[in-house]
Amino acid sequence: MNPSTSALLTDLYELTMAQAYQEQGMYEQAVFEFFIRKLPAHRNFLVAAGLEQVLDYLSGLCLTQEELAWMDQTGRFTPGLLRYLETLRFTGDVDAMPEGTIFFPHEPILRIVAPLPQAQLVESRVMNLLNFQTMVASKAARSVLVAGGKPIIDFGLRRAHGAEAGLLAARASYLAGFAGSATVLSGMAYGIPLYGTMAHSFVQAHKDEAIAFEHFAQTQPDNVVLLIDTYDTETAARTVVALAPALKAKGITVKGVRLDSGDLADHARKVRRILDEGGLPHAQILASGNLDEYRLRDLIQSRAPIDSFAVGTAMTTSSDAPSLDCAYKLQEYGGRPCRKRSEGKATWPGRKQVYRHYHHDGHYEHDLVTTMDDKVGDAPLLEPVMKAGRRLAPSSALIDVRQRVASQLGQLPAPLRVLESVPAYEVRISSLLQDLARTVDHYV
Amino acid sequence: MNPSTSALLTDLYELTMAQAYQEQGMYEQAVFEFFIRKLPAHRNFLVAAGLEQVLDYLSGLCLTQEELAWMDQTGRFTPGLLRYLETLRFTGDVDAMPEGTIFFPHEPILRIVAPLPQAQLVESRVMNLLNFQTMVASKAARSVLVAGGKPIIDFGLRRAHGAEAGLLAARASYLAGFAGSATVLSGMAYGIPLYGTMAHSFVQAHKDEAIAFEHFAQTQPDNVVLLIDTYDTETAARTVVALAPALKAKGITVKGVRLDSGDLADHARKVRRILDEGGLPHAQILASGNLDEYRLRDLIQSRAPIDSFAVGTAMTTSSDAPSLDCAYKLQEYGGRPCRKRSEGKATWPGRKQVYRHYHHDGHYEHDLVTTMDDKVGDAPLLEPVMKAGRRLAPSSALIDVRQRVASQLGQLPAPLRVLESVPAYEVRISSLLQDLARTVDHYV
Repeated sequence: MNPSTSALLTDLYELTMAQAYQEQGMYEQAVFEFFIRKLPAHRNFLVAAGLEQVLDYLSGLCLTQEELAWMDQTGRFTPGLLRYLETLRFTGDVDAMPEGTIFFPHEPILRIVAPLPQAQLVESRVMNLLNFQTMVASKAARSVLVAGGKPIIDFGLRRAHGAEAGLLAARASYLAGFAGSATVLSGMAYGIPLYGTMAHSFVQAHKDEAIAFEHFAQTQPDNVVLLIDTYDTETAARTVVALAPALKAKGITVKGVRLDSGDLADHARKVRRILDEGGLPHAQILASGNLDEYRLRDLIQSRAPIDSFAVGTAMTTSSDAPSLDCAYKLQEYGGRPCRKRSEGKATWPGRKQVYRHYHHDGHYEHDLVTTMDDKVGDAPLLEPVMKAGRRLAPSSALIDVRQRVASQLGQLPAPLRVLESVPAYEVRISSLLQDLARTVDHYV
Repeated sequence: MNPSTSALLTDLYELTMAQAYQEQGMYEQAVFEFFIRKLPAHRNFLVAAGLEQVLDYLSGLCLTQEELAWMDQTGRFTPGLLRYLETLRFTGDVDAMPEGTIFFPHEPILRIVAPLPQAQLVESRVMNLLNFQTMVASKAARSVLVAGGKPIIDFGLRRAHGAEAGLLAARASYLAGFAGSATVLSGMAYGIPLYGTMAHSFVQAHKDEAIAFEHFAQTQPDNVVLLIDTYDTETAARTVVALAPALKAKGITVKGVRLDSGDLADHARKVRRILDEGGLPHAQILASGNLDEYRLRDLIQSRAPIDSFAVGTAMTTSSDAPSLDCAYKLQEYGGRPCRKRSEGKATWPGRKQVYRHYHHDGHYEHDLVTTMDDKVGDAPLLEPVMKAGRRLAPSSALIDVRQRVASQLGQLPAPLRVLESVPAYEVRISSLLQDLARTVDHYV
């Protein structure tokens, strides 16, 4: 059983409602939009990610015989629903912001238009996929903003929430600007550049730290990055220096060392001096160990001689905001716009489009959310990506998505580029959309 | 590709180190232990979970031809490593605390004894699995402690971190005492009881709320739980009352209503009165919407007439502590105990056992962590569960794990049962273990 592809990775109510729709013949076109209600704490913008996996999921949507048999034996579902599900495929249309687009609350980043039971059934997994990668990409972009161009690597698999989270966090952080990941499967699945050094266990398994370093250098002659904090960081740095000439004689260059504990800035300065005085000025220093964008900023501002960073748990779990206040809401059914008005959770009705307005210097000025038929610009942010269940174009290369993020981060207004929360970027709701909301409310 | 079962869901350094071990012929028995360094904020205890998935993973460990071919074409790995991996199976021993055991920092909950490259390779995924389910079970147990026996349901799939997180959060919260989950796949995979009502979209897709309720009742005559906050909660409650006689005439009973927004206690009181006065005293009230253990406690203490709760995002993401400070550390290699001494991250060496001491009233008094050969009690918490790569017994039924958690929560000292952090439960480190640490340090 692969939870990543199972159509039963959904909430029970999606099936219950599909059954009611099926019984009532409610197969008309439903329009659902995915958006964020409000920014989490400490976020000034979000980076859209996860669309690729949503399209994969929709393209492959079907129930296996085993799943149908299990549903049948629960006694919960009608034969009518089971017959409907037996041939279920996704036949709808999808419009979306391309992955890597920077966006803000109330802006739909994905719209699904499909017969009601289909559009309903996919809700749970579509939200699950977009919430996670958007959250991680948005968190990772903060590290990228403060790292001043120094490479950052994803080391977060071990505390990511399960298998798929580990894999997709590597993807989401890479598209946000990380240099790569330690997660091997992300290299195989997405071609993400892989990085790795050694663990403390490697040093411990040897009776002597120097022998451990030597063995590692022999097996990885092109990637000699040695972990030096297992016992005493500066002592180990001197061991590296002492070992370097013998390695050089074998044609092996020490590429760098990794610091993983203690006061990283202080250790980096001491180790830098030891390496420089020991004739290893080109050996780089990689820092890891509970890093996040705040510690990165502090290390950068302190001018600690660190060349690259590994960020793990804080990024893969988005530790300060481990979820987004996201929603996937019915905005139209059978041509009739609708919205919910629940307290604190009211939504804008109908099919929407987002337009971005720019200062003459190229930075974002404000966004406008309006109805689909209100053509107020020539570069709408949502584009058609799937028609009648088929993708309109092959997926973007990750490298292009990375480029999009880099370019959009460059256009982000300067005040939004800081780690602290600042007054919100302006997202205007058009008068046409406000009129539509009033009309909809009037008829409910 | 199924990330949940791929042997390449690992950190690159595990493969790099395995290659060095293979080249150096370092195949002796390695002893790794998994433990928590310190409790996260707001936690007074942890609930061990995830062992079942670890044993599944170890039992099935192997590389596919496709994975080996991919590794080969990267040019990163030696033919020797690839040959070694081609026939790799896990042949080691595992001792562990049974799932559902309450435990504390410094106590190993799992020990792997295997040839060094094997024990090293599985590190990333073993940590990934134990960290997540233990974190979620520990978070869910807090809701169970304050709910006073009222049923709690997992509604967290949509904001869980990916597919596996959604599925395993259902499992971890169920074993911790939740009544069940909305995640359908958890019913199929683990037999977890499933619960569900309807979404706002269901109400919106109908022109009239009453018709929506009627359609839902017809399709789910045994599970008529109606969501009443799409437009106005109390108005909808009156709609339910008005509808009930017609439904009754068809043999359908309104089982309950769901509140999902606004001041839940206030709405519950108003809705309770409307239902009672409308002749529906047996209709129950289910509350959902950004609930966590604190809001649960407040609702319970306010005596709001709520019969059951659905908890989602806060539980599946363990929002206030979305990771554990966990470690999987080499404690012995080739018969030689070892430990790391990195600043703030030193570990206790050697194979360890944990004994629990009880007050005469049955509550926990303190725990003792000691060496394996120090037989100080007859009920060690770690038990052998796998020998030479084979499970010693079939897995525990989840219902038994649930029972273990319930019984252990009952034995937890009263001060630890609160939501706020209190002074730590006493975990003693035996003098034998302290002696061993000194001896180990002396020889490094």
